[in-house]
Amino acid sequence: MTTDKAARRAKFESVWSIIHDELLAHFKACGMPTEAQEWYSKNLQYNVPGGKLNRGMSVVDTVEILKGRPLTDEEYLQVAVLGWGVELLQAFFLVTDDLMDSSITRRGQPCYYRVPEIGLVAVNDAFMLEGAIYHLLKLHFKKEPYYVDLLELFHETSYQTEIGQLIDLITAPEDVVDLSRFSLQKHSMIVVYKTAFYSFYLPVALAMLFCRIPTSYTLPSSTSPVAPYEVAKAILVPLGEYFQVQDDFLDFAGLPAQIGKVGTDIVDNKCSWCINTALSLAGPEQRKTLDENYGVKPTQEEREIAKKMAEGKNGEEQGYLGEAEKRVKAVYEEIGLRKIYAEYEENIYKELMRLIDQIDEGSPGQESVLKKDVFKSFLDKIHRRKK
Amino acid sequence: MTTDKAARRAKFESVWSIIHDELLAHFKACGMPTEAQEWYSKNLQYNVPGGKLNRGMSVVDTVEILKGRPLTDEEYLQVAVLGWGVELLQAFFLVTDDLMDSSITRRGQPCYYRVPEIGLVAVNDAFMLEGAIYHLLKLHFKKEPYYVDLLELFHETSYQTEIGQLIDLITAPEDVVDLSRFSLQKHSMIVVYKTAFYSFYLPVALAMLFCRIPTSYTLPSSTSPVAPYEVAKAILVPLGEYFQVQDDFLDFAGLPAQIGKVGTDIVDNKCSWCINTALSLAGPEQRKTLDENYGVKPTQEEREIAKKMAEGKNGEEQGYLGEAEKRVKAVYEEIGLRKIYAEYEENIYKELMRLIDQIDEGSPGQESVLKKDVFKSFLDKIHRRKK
Repeated sequence: MTTDKAARRAKFESVWSIIHDELLAHFKACGMPTEAQEWYSKNLQYNVPGGKLNRGMSVVDTVEILKGRPLTDEEYLQVAVLGWGVELLQAFFLVTDDLMDSSITRRGQPCYYRVPEIGLVAVNDAFMLEGAIYHLLKLHFKKEPYYVDLLELFHETSYQTEIGQLIDLITAPEDVVDLSRFSLQKHSMIVVYKTAFYSFYLPVALAMLFCRIPTSYTLPSSTSPVAPYEVAKAILVPLGEYFQVQDDFLDFAGLPAQIGKVGTDIVDNKCSWCINTALSLAGPEQRKTLDENYGVKPTQEEREIAKKMAEGKNGEEQGYLGEAEKRVKAVYEEIGLRKIYAEYEENIYKELMRLIDQIDEGSPGQESVLKKDVFKSFLDKIHRRKK
Repeated sequence: MTTDKAARRAKFESVWSIIHDELLAHFKACGMPTEAQEWYSKNLQYNVPGGKLNRGMSVVDTVEILKGRPLTDEEYLQVAVLGWGVELLQAFFLVTDDLMDSSITRRGQPCYYRVPEIGLVAVNDAFMLEGAIYHLLKLHFKKEPYYVDLLELFHETSYQTEIGQLIDLITAPEDVVDLSRFSLQKHSMIVVYKTAFYSFYLPVALAMLFCRIPTSYTLPSSTSPVAPYEVAKAILVPLGEYFQVQDDFLDFAGLPAQIGKVGTDIVDNKCSWCINTALSLAGPEQRKTLDENYGVKPTQEEREIAKKMAEGKNGEEQGYLGEAEKRVKAVYEEIGLRKIYAEYEENIYKELMRLIDQIDEGSPGQESVLKKDVFKSFLDKIHRRKK
């Protein structure tokens, strides 16, 4: 991490401690018993601040680009509260996703529900992370003219994410493998609803509301009105889809030393871009191989070998694969998934650049209008990433 | 149920089918796959409309009292949407409470999470019940001047209920019995936060917002301003507490034939008014008995006897009790819990009547002010109920 990036993160994190204290102070003022105060503090600290913080910090970055200047301390605090709102929303979803998926670890520590004294209390604790968002918005934004828009944006995004999670859960339950449920169309639906709205559109739309960008404006340079939130959505939703397709591809083709983990999508029966693309191109023999081997757990013997190998190495090589997983990966290679992905990436990059270039920024220094750099900075971070 | 009551319920239920269809239409318009549409429909139907509907219908009742006239069809629809919002909020909580408590049945059917294909998907399904509230509020209230107040009221009430659930979960986990964690003060806190706000204050405050009752007004008959939402809260919170204390007492003393169930609070280690009152009055011997027997499950032998007895009778007699439960109940009797409850009920009834009588209704026919009958109708339904 560069010093600049580390400093930006540290500044953003410093607002977290203010938020944490505000939430706890309200809890105390309600007369909550000490154990409950400590429990809530642990819930917040365990689940909210330990991630990459990309989503939350992108609210700050976007406001700075839109305003074209650094923020005052007062502005920074408000914007960072919106950023932490995104992180709280994500924490609310991740805590319960991990429970529903029986996941083991998250951000290098046991999933919250797996902490011995937590268990299913994680569900109510997740609700409280969501509840905290609206408490904070009221505290910091009640007087703003766009307050109700913030509330609606969080509501709508939450509902969209829940809808995406529902399709994902019923399309790809971990224990019932049925590839006939999968399709590229369903994959796109899951990705857009479950990830793109909250990870990409939400942070930018929050920043736009903060900058008082109206729902419609007409620039002096043009006669037709612009609907800037629709423009942003039309770029950020496919951009979010691209991000997730890339994530899916890296789960298959990324080097563990680079992506920091060993891919498990095949073994976990995930409705990934890779399997859906393979299914759309597979001949009958290949289809049979996929049906018989996708989502199949490694045998006991294979797991023991994998464990022994993992102990003896530093993670620089590909992990040991079970036979079923190997057969799926062989079909991916036969089908030419690497080339298909490279083509997809080239095309979507071009298409997103084309959409971004269409944005009319008005005259230099014009305020409260969309800026190309908002979207370019997202695209730059994603394009050709290897981790 | 009287014909009038049945007709009122039927009318309220008829709005549910409109709401269900609106939610599904939006789902369809988002392009959701058929399986997801069916899943959501089942989630809604299984969890929302099958209860007593007291909370939801009390929004309608309250608006009618405040307006002093029957509602137009248009008004009825809007008010019933608020009522169903309360029922959706309750469903959101009950689905997950049952999961966290490992409950078996709810409203005469298996708890939702116990339906074989549901399992932990119940968590996300519960989120969607909550998400539906805000979707419906936007659909039906976006243009109203009190829209943002409705949103804040639902937010705040949800957060309060989650806080109450947290204290309950950490004070009385089913598997760790530790009566030193209990106290009448904690009981009051749990009851107020977990039940009273959403069951009593929320429906009335929603009705008040619908009737455009302002946050403060001064009547011609007086010089000092009234804060009607604070007045309502100051009555409805203790009234909700009374309701729950009564519920706790009936779990111990109610006849199964009347209350429609066999009490399980003692066996389930519930932080009930009964045990907290007993703890506050117990001598050392009695305390020892409570410590050793509260929350103790019946033995295998006792459960078999209970099962056999239940098969051979019609529920008119008290269920068979395990020895541990009998010992706890004996302490309750020694302490004179029945008499203490009767005194409590008399006192709280008098106090609530006193608070209600203080309400200034202004001149006859005056609109947008509080009415005594709002609170009297709640109190009448609760006072001396036996089920």
